[in-house]
Amino acid sequence: MKKLQDIAAETLSRIRERSPLVLSLTNSVVQPLTANLLLAVGATPAMLNDASECADMIEACGNALLVNLGTLTREQADAMRVATDTANARGVPWVLDPVAVGLLKFRTEFARELLAKTPTVIRGNGAEILALAGYAAKTRGPESTCGSEAAAEAARELARGCGAAVLVTGAVDYATDGAGTLACANGHPMLTRVTGAGCSMGALTAACAAVADSPLEAAAAAAVLTGVAGEIAFENSGAPGTFAVKLLDAFYEMTPELVRSRTKAV
Amino acid sequence: MKKLQDIAAETLSRIRERSPLVLSLTNSVVQPLTANLLLAVGATPAMLNDASECADMIEACGNALLVNLGTLTREQADAMRVATDTANARGVPWVLDPVAVGLLKFRTEFARELLAKTPTVIRGNGAEILALAGYAAKTRGPESTCGSEAAAEAARELARGCGAAVLVTGAVDYATDGAGTLACANGHPMLTRVTGAGCSMGALTAACAAVADSPLEAAAAAAVLTGVAGEIAFENSGAPGTFAVKLLDAFYEMTPELVRSRTKAV
Amino acid sequence: MKKLQDIAAETLSRIRERSPLVLSLTNSVVQPLTANLLLAVGATPAMLNDASECADMIEACGNALLVNLGTLTREQADAMRVATDTANARGVPWVLDPVAVGLLKFRTEFARELLAKTPTVIRGNGAEILALAGYAAKTRGPESTCGSEAAAEAARELARGCGAAVLVTGAVDYATDGAGTLACANGHPMLTRVTGAGCSMGALTAACAAVADSPLEAAAAAAVLTGVAGEIAFENSGAPGTFAVKLLDAFYEMTPELVRSRTKAV
Repeated sequence: MKKLQDIAAETLSRIRERSPLVLSLTNSVVQPLTANLLLAVGATPAMLNDASECADMIEACGNALLVNLGTLTREQADAMRVATDTANARGVPWVLDPVAVGLLKFRTEFARELLAKTPTVIRGNGAEILALAGYAAKTRGPESTCGSEAAAEAARELARGCGAAVLVTGAVDYATDGAGTLACANGHPMLTRVTGAGCSMGALTAACAAVADSPLEAAAAAAVLTGVAGEIAFENSGAPGTFAVKLLDAFYEMTPELVRSRTKAV
Repeated sequence: MKKLQDIAAETLSRIRERSPLVLSLTNSVVQPLTANLLLAVGATPAMLNDASECADMIEACGNALLVNLGTLTREQADAMRVATDTANARGVPWVLDPVAVGLLKFRTEFARELLAKTPTVIRGNGAEILALAGYAAKTRGPESTCGSEAAAEAARELARGCGAAVLVTGAVDYATDGAGTLACANGHPMLTRVTGAGCSMGALTAACAAVADSPLEAAAAAAVLTGVAGEIAFENSGAPGTFAVKLLDAFYEMTPELVRSRTKAV
Repeated sequence: MKKLQDIAAETLSRIRERSPLVLSLTNSVVQPLTANLLLAVGATPAMLNDASECADMIEACGNALLVNLGTLTREQADAMRVATDTANARGVPWVLDPVAVGLLKFRTEFARELLAKTPTVIRGNGAEILALAGYAAKTRGPESTCGSEAAAEAARELARGCGAAVLVTGAVDYATDGAGTLACANGHPMLTRVTGAGCSMGALTAACAAVADSPLEAAAAAAVLTGVAGEIAFENSGAPGTFAVKLLDAFYEMTPELVRSRTKAV
């Protein structure tokens, strides 16, 4: 298997070259940051609310799809059904971000429905991945109430069970496809003080999936790129308002060489 | 009654210790700032759009609820009905932010419906509070067309009539429960040049209500904390883009001691 | 015809004096930036989702209306129908921003329906204007896949056909009412790396239309003001997170004199 630093650096290079269009069906809170982060890293964001337009967009020019359940409604679930079906029919990779699954019934049932359609990558925190894998962990809103380590084995089970790569994020991020696992210690706790930093990572994972050699490599690259950008942002600001601004700057300014030199494989 | 500076300082300490989860059913324009402000001050934000999920969230882990009418729809009104009923049944405090009530018929009628359910705190500008109290004041979109002083007496009437504490915001902020009134002169006009600064104050009021000894103290604390953060932000920037960023930084960095020393009781 | 620099400077002066209320029915991704940009330049933003409230707001105090199709839904289309009918009945100017028209069928049909109601100004990139004018250009999500020059003649045809002024934005911005054309070379490519910079320009165009002597002058002024603010922002930051913050600062701080001196008529 390639080294983590090479995966991350090469994925960034490819995003910059190809500017994949990522259709993000995501929650209403994080849309501005998500779109700005995709633009900053070099991808092309698109966001829609109408089901028929989601299908049209994926068919016309979609390179990847994000499905984030953060503020799910019945109408949005319908759009997500159409979008994931279209993505599967066209071979477009898609990422499931199961925000607060395990805590809220409607989305938990819907996440299981989506699981059966085989996402390319699932990105969640420890509690969300444990819940998706069938364990009784509880999430507390957007926060994880357990560490990523506790969910690493559940992530492997989940990956083997549903055929997706799984990215569990936390102090250490674990990317696994059930066979191999890549772990990354990049990042900074200040990322948890910015609304949408995790959700935007889901969109970045979709951008990575559009260009990477495998779902596992896409998941691992997204973890490294987010972690490195978070570290650089924190070096420029210790308070969350400025940190969020510097995070976008860091995604824009970072180079494959810098990513390679800063990757912390575990 | 406790002194204003002690109320504000102690409320901040408690938010930092307990990190109350605030479910914010708020308008689509201000969701990112609202969530980021709650995170910066030390609370835990949650935002949802589905009615059943609102009930589930409040029952599972909700410590306070914000209901902001800024971009009300029929569907959101239904979610707000369920959420406020659940909050009342569980003893969870909730804040009503009656944006532009008095100007627009649909939300004015809905605000009256909510009033009958006894919010814990109502936060509005002078025109909104006058309108809710039954006076003929007009709002102009999100702007108040009258000062807070003109509405201070109406706020007391409203508080006595519906059993909520009322926070009227303006150059001077008045918090009243109909019996006592606390007034605060902190703040800066630049807060009116940032979209969502007022709406985020409503969410902060909910966070305060989750930890304060009374609705009146929660309202007063929210006024002081917002005012102090606004003053600090303006000391760091005189233009609204940077000011908004520094406002979040100020909420993150301010200490109970700083708040105590800067409180301007009137 | 007045000189471009005088049009731009005088329009800014009038926005500052009159603070026109702009009701923006716009996509969910760009609402915060749009509202903050309007506040920064001196206008009054309002955003609503309910159709009856849109009519009430325009009748009570609306000075201009923006209709942006970025995340169109069936419900939002209904609100836009009511809002544009109300605006036409009251003589309130309105701007159509046909995001991604030509690529997605639902919005393309809806844009044609709106065209028949005679917008005051249409603002789009080259591909969107070509598509609206009946040419086969394709957009790729929010990005234009052709330059503004290629669409300048189509813009004149479109303006003559539907009676609106048309603003085509790109490296050079062209404003035309079918008879006269004003072209502006202000701006910076970094504006394309900030989500909502273009959409916010549509809202600014509406603010300009509320105060300018003609739709053509409104369109031209919006192009100059946005371009100058973008240039100033880039002088302060070369990365998109900070650039977006400085863009708002630039709109707040720029004076009519500065705008006059920096206008680049072509």
